[in-house]
Amino acid sequence: MPDQHRRRREALARRIADGTEAADAVLITRVVNVRYLTGLDSSNAALLVHADGEAVLCTDSRYAGTARRVCPDLELVVARPTAETLTARAGKAGVRRLAFEAHDVTVDRHGTLTAIDGAPEFVAAGRPVEELRLVKDEEELALLREACAISDRAFAAFLPSLAPGMTEREAAIALERHMVDLGAERPAFHTIVASGPNGALPHHRPGDRVLARGDLVTFDFGALYGGYHADMTRTVALGEPADWQREIYDLVLSAQLAGIAAAEPGADTRRVDRAARTVIADAGHGDHFPHGLGHGVGLEIHEAPLMGYDKTGKLMDRVPITAEPGVYLAGRGGVRIEDTLVVRGSGPELLTETTKDLLVL
Amino acid sequence: MPDQHRRRREALARRIADGTEAADAVLITRVVNVRYLTGLDSSNAALLVHADGEAVLCTDSRYAGTARRVCPDLELVVARPTAETLTARAGKAGVRRLAFEAHDVTVDRHGTLTAIDGAPEFVAAGRPVEELRLVKDEEELALLREACAISDRAFAAFLPSLAPGMTEREAAIALERHMVDLGAERPAFHTIVASGPNGALPHHRPGDRVLARGDLVTFDFGALYGGYHADMTRTVALGEPADWQREIYDLVLSAQLAGIAAAEPGADTRRVDRAARTVIADAGHGDHFPHGLGHGVGLEIHEAPLMGYDKTGKLMDRVPITAEPGVYLAGRGGVRIEDTLVVRGSGPELLTETTKDLLVL
Repeated sequence: MPDQHRRRREALARRIADGTEAADAVLITRVVNVRYLTGLDSSNAALLVHADGEAVLCTDSRYAGTARRVCPDLELVVARPTAETLTARAGKAGVRRLAFEAHDVTVDRHGTLTAIDGAPEFVAAGRPVEELRLVKDEEELALLREACAISDRAFAAFLPSLAPGMTEREAAIALERHMVDLGAERPAFHTIVASGPNGALPHHRPGDRVLARGDLVTFDFGALYGGYHADMTRTVALGEPADWQREIYDLVLSAQLAGIAAAEPGADTRRVDRAARTVIADAGHGDHFPHGLGHGVGLEIHEAPLMGYDKTGKLMDRVPITAEPGVYLAGRGGVRIEDTLVVRGSGPELLTETTKDLLVL
Repeated sequence: MPDQHRRRREALARRIADGTEAADAVLITRVVNVRYLTGLDSSNAALLVHADGEAVLCTDSRYAGTARRVCPDLELVVARPTAETLTARAGKAGVRRLAFEAHDVTVDRHGTLTAIDGAPEFVAAGRPVEELRLVKDEEELALLREACAISDRAFAAFLPSLAPGMTEREAAIALERHMVDLGAERPAFHTIVASGPNGALPHHRPGDRVLARGDLVTFDFGALYGGYHADMTRTVALGEPADWQREIYDLVLSAQLAGIAAAEPGADTRRVDRAARTVIADAGHGDHFPHGLGHGVGLEIHEAPLMGYDKTGKLMDRVPITAEPGVYLAGRGGVRIEDTLVVRGSGPELLTETTKDLLVL
């Protein structure tokens, strides 16, 4: 892995040296970006990358031992004020223009950094690391594929225990435990279990509601594996579904399949969103699908590209995304169906493989 | 609870109106602060509080239903760009000076907000909500007390299963499951289990190392309950401890007790840190205690006051803190002992009550 991280830092260095706002070095402060470039998973770390590819990592004493093990090839400075330490160091090393992550550095911190004696001139870097992270390499896709496979297996292991009488919270805990038992580092995010009328709240927190016959129950969950986030949603019926339940289920599934079919390299993300959204709108439920079609996944559960009716961007080969349309009927319930898939020239590669036939339990 | 949240907003409004940088309103963008002021736990929300106490909440459609239930007394605007929407609204409402959280708003977002047509003048607010959050009310302390009680019970339930042969990761998972089974919303943070030589890494991630006879094993864990974070650490011995193990255990315990004894209202946080640090330094292990003595806990696992040799501040009545000295010997192992306690005029109130006698298993 050290080789891979060095290659990523070199790619970043080229962008910084060649960018329209050419700089002598870049200061990376978003810790997920530090992880991408070094392998170190720390809540307090920063990285200085010079235009020639040379890099210095700074983290505090709690993570110093881990850093020496994970990235032995990198120069390490141990200090608690990480960005401040590297800024002073950049100044001393003769850096005149220092690119920084203006989407991460707060107004307060920017004030502190620019006031450091001998600090370089700070220039907004854009989001060069997020841009590098957009297209995954095959090692990353292998980790994401495993995260999704664990999620599929966990859902299959969980389903036999699902029955009226358990609470949403009990169901969420049971599903999360299956993921961990099957190899997940941990759940990739807080599992959503939304039953009956709660299914109309897209981000419902599982609570004490007891699952009942006649409910649709939505499970939105995923495993974290090697730092990569799986994200999938299935809605199941407890008992024979009513006509309205079956109707919105079939509708959401059609929309999801249309969205997936449109997800090809070069596609405009708004067009992909629209491919799914039109199906729902044509059935008169446009107002009941109040969120975007999906989002990129990787080292973060939500990352670029965001796919909504107002989000611009282009899909590319080897970009993993979710496709997760839903229909939510206030006071009654809802359906959401979601897969994680990889955009490929040869057609979308579905990473979550659990059936999308309506499961009636 | 709505009453309590209204009182908090009114206290904030008074600070904003009376501050040295007096403003007409304040824009709260840190979501944990929005939660403190409204009760809404959302990953995307902002709150505008006028100097007269009137407030408007903005969150996106995923959380709208929850917001209506949790804070029915608050005016709600549903939009995805939350701070942007409330800034435009403040401008239209005649706000001329708008205080903002400069420790939360990024340089990018600040640029976007100040460019909004009709935007008020933005003035840095300091950290008024964090200052309000410092001293807890009794309702908050009751939640924290329960979080700590669950953590104690979970450790007691877990200990009988602890034995050589299990991995760090298996131990961490088992302990976390006991917390959830005993009522935790979830673990307050990722449980640390550091065994044998790994005990020398303060923030070790539990891995595949198999616990062995002769190890010291450090458990750093806590339950989340009602949004409040417990934080405790115990180090146990697998088999009769060697002299050096017993020696650093006794040393860390003495230091911890000295730190707790110094934690009284009005005490300078550096002095409290020093009370513990001196004990360790006097025994020749000063270099082996590379972090601060502790930190505040509440709606965040790490919050004000931070207690280190270089962190200034004063303790006050009803401020919950941790006291967690450690000694870490590279390549050999380490000991950390930590409690969550509340600073009180009548003497520290210990919330975590598990014995600190060295447990030999």
